[in-house]
Amino acid sequence: MYAWQLHASLPKNTHPTGEKVWEEVLKWEKVELPPLSPGYARVRLLASALNRRDLWIGLGLYPGIRYPAILGSDGCGEVVEVNAPSAQQWIGQKVILNPSLYWGDDERVQSERYEILGMPSRGTFAEYVDVPVENLHLVPSHLTEVEAAAVPLAGLTAYRATFVQGGLKAGEKVFIPGIGGGVALWALQLAVAAGAEVWVASSSESKIATAVQLGAAGGILYTQEGWVQTLLEKAGHFHLIVDGIGGEVFPSYLHLIAPGGRIVVYGATRGNPPMIDLRRLFWKQAHIIGSTMGSPKDFAALLAFIEKTKLRPHVETILPLQAFPAALMQLWTGSQMGKIVLEHSQR
Amino acid sequence: MYAWQLHASLPKNTHPTGEKVWEEVLKWEKVELPPLSPGYARVRLLASALNRRDLWIGLGLYPGIRYPAILGSDGCGEVVEVNAPSAQQWIGQKVILNPSLYWGDDERVQSERYEILGMPSRGTFAEYVDVPVENLHLVPSHLTEVEAAAVPLAGLTAYRATFVQGGLKAGEKVFIPGIGGGVALWALQLAVAAGAEVWVASSSESKIATAVQLGAAGGILYTQEGWVQTLLEKAGHFHLIVDGIGGEVFPSYLHLIAPGGRIVVYGATRGNPPMIDLRRLFWKQAHIIGSTMGSPKDFAALLAFIEKTKLRPHVETILPLQAFPAALMQLWTGSQMGKIVLEHSQR
Repeated sequence: MYAWQLHASLPKNTHPTGEKVWEEVLKWEKVELPPLSPGYARVRLLASALNRRDLWIGLGLYPGIRYPAILGSDGCGEVVEVNAPSAQQWIGQKVILNPSLYWGDDERVQSERYEILGMPSRGTFAEYVDVPVENLHLVPSHLTEVEAAAVPLAGLTAYRATFVQGGLKAGEKVFIPGIGGGVALWALQLAVAAGAEVWVASSSESKIATAVQLGAAGGILYTQEGWVQTLLEKAGHFHLIVDGIGGEVFPSYLHLIAPGGRIVVYGATRGNPPMIDLRRLFWKQAHIIGSTMGSPKDFAALLAFIEKTKLRPHVETILPLQAFPAALMQLWTGSQMGKIVLEHSQR
Repeated sequence: MYAWQLHASLPKNTHPTGEKVWEEVLKWEKVELPPLSPGYARVRLLASALNRRDLWIGLGLYPGIRYPAILGSDGCGEVVEVNAPSAQQWIGQKVILNPSLYWGDDERVQSERYEILGMPSRGTFAEYVDVPVENLHLVPSHLTEVEAAAVPLAGLTAYRATFVQGGLKAGEKVFIPGIGGGVALWALQLAVAAGAEVWVASSSESKIATAVQLGAAGGILYTQEGWVQTLLEKAGHFHLIVDGIGGEVFPSYLHLIAPGGRIVVYGATRGNPPMIDLRRLFWKQAHIIGSTMGSPKDFAALLAFIEKTKLRPHVETILPLQAFPAALMQLWTGSQMGKIVLEHSQR
C-alpha cells in the first residue's frame, strides 16, 4: 500500500509557513503490508483526521518517537479482512476506529502496554490500517465518512474528561478555556448536548463567536484585564472546568470553581502553572483530576451519546489525503478551529 | 462559668519558649452563660484537647478572628441541659462533640454558614459549652474521657481525607508525609486499622519510630538525599497520599503516586508547592482532592469505625485545664507527637 511515512522530525527552527518544510522528512511512498495478525482487522481508509499529536511527533516534541512512522489516530473506513474466526461479520462494514490500543482492564487508568494508534503502530494517513478487532465500531448512523473521521481521538478525550473524570450532569455550569483546541471544542459540544451551561475562554474573538454558535452561553478573552472577575460576575462559579492549557491561566481555576467542584486536566499546551493555592483547594473541597484518552467502555459510550443526541462534529477543513503536509502546516499556524479531515480517494 | 478567654493575638515576634507570653492575652475568667438557645444542648466538659487551629488563632494567623474568643474544638462531657423537647434523653449522657457546625445538606462540601466549634462560637476550654443537639454523640464504649476528647477535629479531618475523599480500601498502599501532625497521626491509625499498608515521612527519626510502633510499614526522612527514589524502591508506588504539608515536598507526590491514584490535601503547613507537573498528572490519571473537616455523616462513620476497630487515639500529654497556656506553648515548640488533652476537674 501507499502511506505518508515520517522518516525524521522536522529540523529545529523551521518556520511553519516556510515552503516545502515537510518534504524532507515526510514521504508518500510504498510500504509493504504484512500478513494480518491474529485478532486484527484490516481497514481500507475512507477518511482520516489530524490531531495536535501528529504535529508534536512531526516536530520531534513527543516522548518515544520511532522512525519510520505512519501517523494518524483518527480514521473511518471499510473492513476488508479479519483474522479472527468469530469476527467475520465485520467484513464489508463501514467502521470508525477506537484509537486507544491495549487499554487494559482498569477503567481508572490505561495499562503499561497502552498505545495510541499511529506511532509506534501504523496509523491512518495511509491506504490501509490494521487494528485489533475490538477497536472496530459501527459509524453513528447520521454521520458522513468525513464527520466520522473527526470523532475518535478528540471526541474520546473530551468524553472521558467531561463525563467520566468530570462527572458532568445536566444543568451544571462548565468552563472550557482554550476553546480553539480540538478536544476543547468536543468538550463544548458534548457538554451542550448534555444540557450543561458552557462558558469558554480564548485569546481570539472569532473562536469565542464560533463557540457561541455551537451553543456556548458566552465567552471571555484572557487578554481582557480582570477577566476572572468579569467572568465570575457574568456566569457565577463553575461546577466543572475542562482544561487543556494549564500555564499561567491555571491558578485562576481555584477562584472560578464552585465549592466541591472539579477541574479536569487533559493537556498543558501552555506548560505548568506557576503556583497552586492549596488552602483554597482544600477549603473548597475541590478536585483536580488528570484525564487522558479513554477506555474501550468510554469510546462505546461516546458513540452511543453521539447517536442519541445526533451530535455532528465541527469539521472546518476537508482536504485530500495527498494534502497531508499542507494540513499539518495549517494545524501548525493554529488559526483553524475544528477538525481538519482528509478524504482518501480510491486509487 | 469560668473559661479561658482570648482577648487579642499574641504580640508578633514573641518567642514560643518565652515566659508568660500568653498571660497578656489569655485569661481564665468568669463568663456569663446565656440562656440555652432552642435546639441546643449544654455540656459540662470533662476533657478537651488542643489542635493547631487553636495555636494559629492565638498567634493571629487565622482568617476572621473575633475577640474575645473561647477556643477549643475538641471536647468530651456530660449533658446538663437540653432546649429541645424531643432530645431530653440526652440529659445525663456522656458525650463527644462533633466540631463541625452547620455543615449543610451537601456531602461534597460545607455550606457558607459552616463554622468550626470554638471561635466564633464558644469552644471547649471552659467549664461548659453549648452545641446543637445534632452535634452530640455517645462516647465509643472502650474510650476513656481523655481519649474521647482526642478524637473530634483531627479524627474527623483524617477520616474524611482518608476514606471519603481518598476512598481508601484494604490492601492499598498509603503514604503520609508530616507524620508529626495530629491529623497525619489519625490518618495513620485509621489506615492501619482499615488494613492498608502505610508509609510515613518526617524530618524526625523518633516520629518515624513512633509511627512504626503504631503500625506503619516504614518511614523515610525528607532530609535524606534521594528520599523519593529510596521510598519508591522500598515501597513501590502509592494508591493514596494523605497530605497536610504541601510546599516543596508536594511535587514529589506525582512521582510517588500509582497510576489512577489519589492525593488528598487537607493542609499546607509548608505553604504552596513551587510547581505541579500537569503532564504527569494527566498521563497518570491522578486525582488531587481537597478535604477539610467532615460532614455529620462523616463524624458518625468515624465513631462507628472507632467502635468497631477498638482504635485508641495516641494521647501524648495529659494536663489540667489550668495548664492551657503551657499546653499551647508545648504545641508551639512542635516536639510532641500525638494529642495534648486537658482534664477538667470539677470546681
